[in-house]
Amino acid sequence: MINEAYKAMLGGKSVIRELSEYATARGAEIGYENVFDYSLGNPSVPCPQDYTDAVIDMYKTAEPVALHGYSPSLGISSVRKAIAESLNRRFDMDYTADYIFPTTGAAGALTHALRVVTKPGDEVITFAPYFPEYQPYVNGTGAHLTVVPADTENFQINFDAFEKALNPGTAAVLINTPNNPSGAVYSAETLTRLAEVLNAKQTEYGHDIFLIADEPYREIVFDGGEQPYPSKFYDNTLSCYSYSKSLSLPGERIGYVAVNPRATDAKLIVPMCGQISRGTGHNCPSSTAQLAVAKVVDETSDLSVYETNMNLLYDALTRLGFDVVRPGGTFYIFPKALEEDANAFCMKAKDYDLILVPSDSFGVPGYFRMAYCIDTEKVERSIAALEKFVHEVYGR
Amino acid sequence: MINEAYKAMLGGKSVIRELSEYATARGAEIGYENVFDYSLGNPSVPCPQDYTDAVIDMYKTAEPVALHGYSPSLGISSVRKAIAESLNRRFDMDYTADYIFPTTGAAGALTHALRVVTKPGDEVITFAPYFPEYQPYVNGTGAHLTVVPADTENFQINFDAFEKALNPGTAAVLINTPNNPSGAVYSAETLTRLAEVLNAKQTEYGHDIFLIADEPYREIVFDGGEQPYPSKFYDNTLSCYSYSKSLSLPGERIGYVAVNPRATDAKLIVPMCGQISRGTGHNCPSSTAQLAVAKVVDETSDLSVYETNMNLLYDALTRLGFDVVRPGGTFYIFPKALEEDANAFCMKAKDYDLILVPSDSFGVPGYFRMAYCIDTEKVERSIAALEKFVHEVYGR
Repeated sequence: MINEAYKAMLGGKSVIRELSEYATARGAEIGYENVFDYSLGNPSVPCPQDYTDAVIDMYKTAEPVALHGYSPSLGISSVRKAIAESLNRRFDMDYTADYIFPTTGAAGALTHALRVVTKPGDEVITFAPYFPEYQPYVNGTGAHLTVVPADTENFQINFDAFEKALNPGTAAVLINTPNNPSGAVYSAETLTRLAEVLNAKQTEYGHDIFLIADEPYREIVFDGGEQPYPSKFYDNTLSCYSYSKSLSLPGERIGYVAVNPRATDAKLIVPMCGQISRGTGHNCPSSTAQLAVAKVVDETSDLSVYETNMNLLYDALTRLGFDVVRPGGTFYIFPKALEEDANAFCMKAKDYDLILVPSDSFGVPGYFRMAYCIDTEKVERSIAALEKFVHEVYGR
Repeated sequence: MINEAYKAMLGGKSVIRELSEYATARGAEIGYENVFDYSLGNPSVPCPQDYTDAVIDMYKTAEPVALHGYSPSLGISSVRKAIAESLNRRFDMDYTADYIFPTTGAAGALTHALRVVTKPGDEVITFAPYFPEYQPYVNGTGAHLTVVPADTENFQINFDAFEKALNPGTAAVLINTPNNPSGAVYSAETLTRLAEVLNAKQTEYGHDIFLIADEPYREIVFDGGEQPYPSKFYDNTLSCYSYSKSLSLPGERIGYVAVNPRATDAKLIVPMCGQISRGTGHNCPSSTAQLAVAKVVDETSDLSVYETNMNLLYDALTRLGFDVVRPGGTFYIFPKALEEDANAFCMKAKDYDLILVPSDSFGVPGYFRMAYCIDTEKVERSIAALEKFVHEVYGR
């Protein structure tokens, strides 16, 4: 019998996907180079040559039966060890392979982490603006997502609203830093205060509150800065990562959960992920993808284009009078729309072939997201279109 | 808060995994060539050279940003089309790309198919002997698995027991042919009768009963035979497939669900799989794995070794007086143990470095499974060990 609940979900469409499909269709009409498609967070720079070379070398030299054999159910040991050691070098942690669970990207990581630390009926808190897929990730566990209103001053955390939202049913808090869509990089000060609040509430409620840190943009930080490592600030942290952005490999579906060794039941969490996998059919990410990322574990693509693009857009938007927080990282910028209704604003922008994503699905009305993972040359041309749009429609 | 249900599952261990780990440890002691490891269904023949060449060619010539970009959420169109057309050629079906949903192997396929056609509380019926992971796959949906006792004459379907088990709460029936662990290939007669029973019960109960056909061993059929295609016999069929066995790629996690175009709500089922994916974090299988299998979609590894091994083992087991059904396919054989307690039997075999899997976890007591996806030379040597074991312990 067809499941009516999933059938009912077919109505709901992703605004981002719809806009991306529109951009592709429009591109077929007028040439894709003439569509300023800021809809999708698909990396625009190639993966490192070392990654390509590592894969070709494996396929040329490894024995196929071994290369393509089943991965152990908790991931390939040497890969888990390489990831642990890389994190230890960078963030002065003390992971071992036992605390690393390779996953099919951040989606796989988050859905496992959420199942480990919630049960149906529990509450997970996140902060606006947030990645819209958090809704299905959390709903899929049987828990529900509560969204804390944004700190629109700088897109750090609105702590007053957060403290009001916390309650004894809160099982986990889900953060995303550097943040999609705002580009905010949570500061050491923010993470310190977050840990203080959570520690106090754990004591008050008499139970653990886990922090799930979604960190796929960890390596895309501007001005020579670095994303402070959330797990360094709070013991009950599960770090969820994807190589999609740092190595430009979104199609390969490869990431991990890293369990803070000082978390409650830390030693059990990766084996629990293995049990969860059996029920969802996740099993492991591709064994060759696991082996290949382990060979370039400390590398990234050349990510500098995102900072170049951000500076061009930030300067143009500021010049045009937009209210916009300067992103500290990612490849997103999140300005305030020029009218209250961001959907109307973005609809009008389409007439100038500017594909902008209205902010409603990110949990904040009145803003829009631009994903500037596109060629710099196109960003430059888009600024003329933006100027024309703002001038003609809003008289600026 | 740590999820106590998943924590409680940590007690349960896979007998197959435990035996495989024992074999590896014993191999380190006495040399792995001296351990007759029949525990694990890991293909022993290499993938086709064309697969390796296709991957190397893609990595050498394709533009990395495009090659590693996000797969569309329902899979890459050209890949879905290639799979549909291959199935149409082989089985005279009329799939289009719209009915194909690429997944992370058969595990991904089954967990999606199960979610599409059950809701929590529903019943799924399967037939002993069955693959033990069906339990977590079904439990993960909130449905429960009912196991129909085996037809131990020939490991087809025990229809008397099946008709007794069917009831208005039955939402789906899950079959696995060619069968792990018995090696049975469901005949056209079996599939015809199965369809008749299901059609009659659909009418009687006034609701759909879906057939989920798990077919990863489809291409491993002996004596020049072929597996009749279950979806040809019954409209409400979701075919679940993995390239793990036919192309020897278990680590790559690549397979699909193929929806019979005449199934109820057929056009909605792949989009529903996409919605289900969002909640489990499955997303898509690796884009390069999708593209690579599409290039060798009508090929298989050289699978002939499995038939050679089967014949050697079947002859030896028969000669030694085992009660054994000759497998029609797969790389498994499922003889009756020489004492009632298959666990005791397999434990004693370990003293002869014969690693056999007792049948209890397959839903039939008193049998054992041998996975003969190992070198023929080793099979030959193992027969001497088997003879010695049977002679010394059971006086035969």
